[in-house]
Amino acid sequence: MSKLINIAVVGLGQVGNYLLNELNTKKKDIELKTGKKINVVAVSARNINKKRKFKVNKKIFYKNPLEIFKKNNIDILFEAIGLSDGISKKVVETALKSKIHVITPNKALISKHGNELAKLAEKNKVNLEFEASVAGGIPILRSIKEGLATNKISKVYGILNGTSNYILSEMENSNENFADVLKKAQILGYAEPGNPKLDLNGFDAFAKVRILSALAFNSKISKYKCLMEGIEKIELKDIKIANQLDLRIKLLGISELKNNHLFETVHPCLVSKKSYIGNVNGVMNAVILQGKPVGESVLQGEGAGPGPTSSSLLSDLLSILRGNIKNLSVLVFLSLNL
Amino acid sequence: MSKLINIAVVGLGQVGNYLLNELNTKKKDIELKTGKKINVVAVSARNINKKRKFKVNKKIFYKNPLEIFKKNNIDILFEAIGLSDGISKKVVETALKSKIHVITPNKALISKHGNELAKLAEKNKVNLEFEASVAGGIPILRSIKEGLATNKISKVYGILNGTSNYILSEMENSNENFADVLKKAQILGYAEPGNPKLDLNGFDAFAKVRILSALAFNSKISKYKCLMEGIEKIELKDIKIANQLDLRIKLLGISELKNNHLFETVHPCLVSKKSYIGNVNGVMNAVILQGKPVGESVLQGEGAGPGPTSSSLLSDLLSILRGNIKNLSVLVFLSLNL
Repeated sequence: MSKLINIAVVGLGQVGNYLLNELNTKKKDIELKTGKKINVVAVSARNINKKRKFKVNKKIFYKNPLEIFKKNNIDILFEAIGLSDGISKKVVETALKSKIHVITPNKALISKHGNELAKLAEKNKVNLEFEASVAGGIPILRSIKEGLATNKISKVYGILNGTSNYILSEMENSNENFADVLKKAQILGYAEPGNPKLDLNGFDAFAKVRILSALAFNSKISKYKCLMEGIEKIELKDIKIANQLDLRIKLLGISELKNNHLFETVHPCLVSKKSYIGNVNGVMNAVILQGKPVGESVLQGEGAGPGPTSSSLLSDLLSILRGNIKNLSVLVFLSLNL
Repeated sequence: MSKLINIAVVGLGQVGNYLLNELNTKKKDIELKTGKKINVVAVSARNINKKRKFKVNKKIFYKNPLEIFKKNNIDILFEAIGLSDGISKKVVETALKSKIHVITPNKALISKHGNELAKLAEKNKVNLEFEASVAGGIPILRSIKEGLATNKISKVYGILNGTSNYILSEMENSNENFADVLKKAQILGYAEPGNPKLDLNGFDAFAKVRILSALAFNSKISKYKCLMEGIEKIELKDIKIANQLDLRIKLLGISELKNNHLFETVHPCLVSKKSYIGNVNGVMNAVILQGKPVGESVLQGEGAGPGPTSSSLLSDLLSILRGNIKNLSVLVFLSLNL
């Protein structure tokens, strides 16, 4: 990789816009830490005039993200459009085929097409990195791949959806029902204003469970059982009854190996108020990993929002710039893991 | 690095012996994950006949650790002797000068001589890795260096000494005084049988604070203020009074940047029983990191013992075998970090 790195950011929602600002303000820091100069050469979003928190340089703006490949010599692309299919998938595929490294927080895309995209990345000798797709700013994927890499993992679980956790916590705190708290969450930006369904029905957490499984266990192994249920049916009276029993309701995502079968589940669980997981409240995420010989490890942090997500996106950028990721396709590579 | 890697383990106490067994039983797993075959060619300890949990191959045993360099072509050396000076330092220096990568859990050595040794490693183009020196199996150093690398860190703190935390927890649980609980800790192996002083007077936690500072802030920066106090003076009545106020006493290690001055402290703190840190009990360690843009991140896990320590030692091994560590001398490298 040459010393001047051209970067594209596709998708300028909350995350993309925040990231762009970080890339601009941290140029010098990144150069000190990697020896490489970064240069944002292209950004793309549907609407150039949308009101954004940070200013966008209009000279490098493209309405059609596929146009960016024609006019620029891009080294690394950030995909922050979202959704598992459609334009986000097309952009990532085009980038990988053009030998461009891809960094994405898109859990829907990775959990559905991760293997296929990882193979494409490997074939083209570039990286596909997605630390930000699970648990926001918590370096959980990196910890499984590196910091805890020689452990025999038996279980990974935790609170993986900040929206659900906020709603459950707030129902208890404010004594309000599901619908009212959901409205509050939407106003505060903790739940999607239009369609919060994917957070509430367990789908978002389940996508993250699938990604955790892929890294921790190699999700291709034999049969597996799965169950997905969100918090939509939780009523205030459930919260109150749990409370009386010194319990709390938490939406847990669980990936567990039992008798060589993989169990992947997302559902509301009753946990003790005295337990660690029972005290992870609000929009916090937490991942608990059981492994040998490390024992039980816990990683907790802000699970969503542009700040924590950008932290993980930038850590992937640093790894690529430092040349730290040798084994290209993480998912394919980890299919060797058991 | 060739495909066959020769390894030496110096020091066969609890950690060294456990590590040796892990290296032998995980050979195949390590080869799958790195493409490299490892081969333990030399081990060293004072007494070959000491009773150990796992069997030692006597054919590769050396009483004098400096002898191992003469007869073997070593690629990577694990130093598990301990102490900041004397033979452990001599072994590490000799290894680095001989262009041998070094992996160590020795916090006393790294906190005292880390900069000098890191320069030696850099000069000889080998790695000096010490993930296991802070918080056992928790991948905290790796997280600061990589997963959270582009954050502006303002504070790192936590429970860094398992022995002290066990004693404080057990005084509360069993209603016994310091001396009795210390005896129990020694029997259970949570405190050194001979001289537990370095754990109890805050020195061990302080060494870890120094290492955290080096990575998070570049500890060379201007003046800094420090304070070191252990738990030796804590009496049962202190625990009881705290309890009545809904508080707990915890030995915290803190590294904090205020007005561009570094404050490093280790001392017993009163924390709320309802706080996260107030519920990290027994031999657990926890590190809390405040950074921008990630917010507050928490990493918790078993802080001591041969299992968690070996987990971190092996993660360093994997990083070296994968060629993942490009920037050789971490401490020197991070002196650029602010």
